Amino acid sequence: MLGTDPAVEQDSSLEDQLRVNPDRFRVLTGDRPTGSLHLGHYFGTLQNRVRLQNLGVESFVLIADYQVLTDRDVANNLELAVHGLVLDYLAVGIDPLRTTIFTHSAIAALNQLLLPFLSLVSVAELERNPTVKDEITHSKQSSVSGLMFTYPVHQAADILFCKANVVPVGKDQLPHLELTRTIARRFNTRYAPEKSIFAEPTALLSAAPLLLGTDGGKMSKSRNNAVALADDADTTARLIRGAKTDSFRQISYDPEHRPEVSSLVLLAALCQNKDPYEVGDELGSAGSGALKSLVIDAVNEHLAPIRARRIELAKDPGYLRDVLRVGNQRANAVAEQTLEEVRKAMKTYY
Amino acid sequence: MLGTDPAVEQDSSLEDQLRVNPDRFRVLTGDRPTGSLHLGHYFGTLQNRVRLQNLGVESFVLIADYQVLTDRDVANNLELAVHGLVLDYLAVGIDPLRTTIFTHSAIAALNQLLLPFLSLVSVAELERNPTVKDEITHSKQSSVSGLMFTYPVHQAADILFCKANVVPVGKDQLPHLELTRTIARRFNTRYAPEKSIFAEPTALLSAAPLLLGTDGGKMSKSRNNAVALADDADTTARLIRGAKTDSFRQISYDPEHRPEVSSLVLLAALCQNKDPYEVGDELGSAGSGALKSLVIDAVNEHLAPIRARRIELAKDPGYLRDVLRVGNQRANAVAEQTLEEVRKAMKTYY
Repeated sequence: MLGTDPAVEQDSSLEDQLRVNPDRFRVLTGDRPTGSLHLGHYFGTLQNRVRLQNLGVESFVLIADYQVLTDRDVANNLELAVHGLVLDYLAVGIDPLRTTIFTHSAIAALNQLLLPFLSLVSVAELERNPTVKDEITHSKQSSVSGLMFTYPVHQAADILFCKANVVPVGKDQLPHLELTRTIARRFNTRYAPEKSIFAEPTALLSAAPLLLGTDGGKMSKSRNNAVALADDADTTARLIRGAKTDSFRQISYDPEHRPEVSSLVLLAALCQNKDPYEVGDELGSAGSGALKSLVIDAVNEHLAPIRARRIELAKDPGYLRDVLRVGNQRANAVAEQTLEEVRKAMKTYY
Repeated sequence: MLGTDPAVEQDSSLEDQLRVNPDRFRVLTGDRPTGSLHLGHYFGTLQNRVRLQNLGVESFVLIADYQVLTDRDVANNLELAVHGLVLDYLAVGIDPLRTTIFTHSAIAALNQLLLPFLSLVSVAELERNPTVKDEITHSKQSSVSGLMFTYPVHQAADILFCKANVVPVGKDQLPHLELTRTIARRFNTRYAPEKSIFAEPTALLSAAPLLLGTDGGKMSKSRNNAVALADDADTTARLIRGAKTDSFRQISYDPEHRPEVSSLVLLAALCQNKDPYEVGDELGSAGSGALKSLVIDAVNEHLAPIRARRIELAKDPGYLRDVLRVGNQRANAVAEQTLEEVRKAMKTYY
């Protein structure tokens, strides 16, 4: 399946290329500023971003502030949420000198790309888009806003403005990338048939580890079932101590049949850089109390340096503003260059 | 009816205010660069723009180049179409030192407004919007593009970026302005409850004269039934000579029962600044040949100085580029100031 879909390079081959020729790649990732990042984000995406950055791949991290406008609570505390994200990024090792951290609302030339891109997509395609369908399903609003409806086109602008050619995604997000590829292709065909302006970005498939929330559901800060990077050791202990398990004393790593216990085992294994089966075997019949103690220690130990950095950095909001100012300057320069190419290709120079 | 709709000031009262306090108003008008402007545009809107400008009302004229992208023929000759519009504007008396002439694609900060505005409008509202319905009906495309679907929101950005508070429209266009008013109101309520950022623009109702194309249909260059400002005297004569009339020798101004003849009578009257009934009476039983000769002379005489200016101006494309450069600079400065206010109100400063 993977081999037959041109959108999906097999990870091993793409990974090889990333290691051998990191300077041929640009990667875009990002988050909505909806709250603190948690362990699911950390092991699912943040570690991978730091890894790619440290391979020498030029990286852009988007804070999608315009995508939270419809959530009134978040919109009213945007600065807090945005600064929280920057703190998380810096604490885990994203280096603002090597990675461009920027906010959507600050990059006018990026936003302008939305207009020509909207002309390349039909309403029917937007209605069919799984991202929009997801948004509509998950939306707590009574009606879908125009911003949400056109969201996949914004996403295309986010990826194409910096000509990112690698986008880390989970398998379920593959269709999301497809519209960006379509827009890049249509733009080139229509306006730049001789020399393409936009490369079609490739998905870097990354299997996020199967970490569940402490209630056994999807990990989410709003459900209060997730350990945030920003939480202290006591909060971490309290959350994990209250995690759902099952009634068997014997600990094992068996995600299919024992999802809650296995999630805890996996969390310890990830923190200790061990194999989860090994962690399960070592615990043997020690019971869930012992498992939780192990997980609490492993998480707090792993996060200790990250949290210490986060606390230090939080003391200097001026530095956070500098990080965003420099990142936004850089993103603006890149966006303006791309927009100039777009204007030339579209012949909107008069 | 007019008195009960807050969107519509009675013309006489608004006209009084425009005359007495022109500096309290800003007016936005504009055109799609789809071809030469013709007599319908001239008597329907261009004359009124020049009049408002000369009253001292600050005026913005938008060349909506992003709105013609879906028309491939136009998109491939954009410079020609845009320069043609500028020539028409300057020739009829729009003064680039008093009126800001600008192109949509050059004003990134204006385009960015689309995103927060899209968040204030639901998909259902866009679907119901008469502008979009019109676009869908008149579109020759097989499917409606995302750009067309979100068109009324772009229009809101066009009007609100420069805080235009007067928008000249025909009665049938009143609903088009309503979404802009809604967006202004919602933005203020949501983000600027204490001190409004956007005034709700008022429609300046202007009854466009009932000029028909030479085939008796709607005047349109693409139907080859309209005299363009750019046409020469011979082309004008040929077009009017071939105009549809009726079989009665007696000439009269009776738009309801004799639309084609009345349109010709009206055209002569407009050119000669006379009453159309008077023009009809003067012709008496002279027949349609005499009517056409009169119209040809009247149009060519009226347009002669405009056409002479147009020919002179066309010799200097560098000047046209200067006009657009200066206009775009001014529009950018205004747009960036508005975007700064919007950013402050939305608290997207970090």
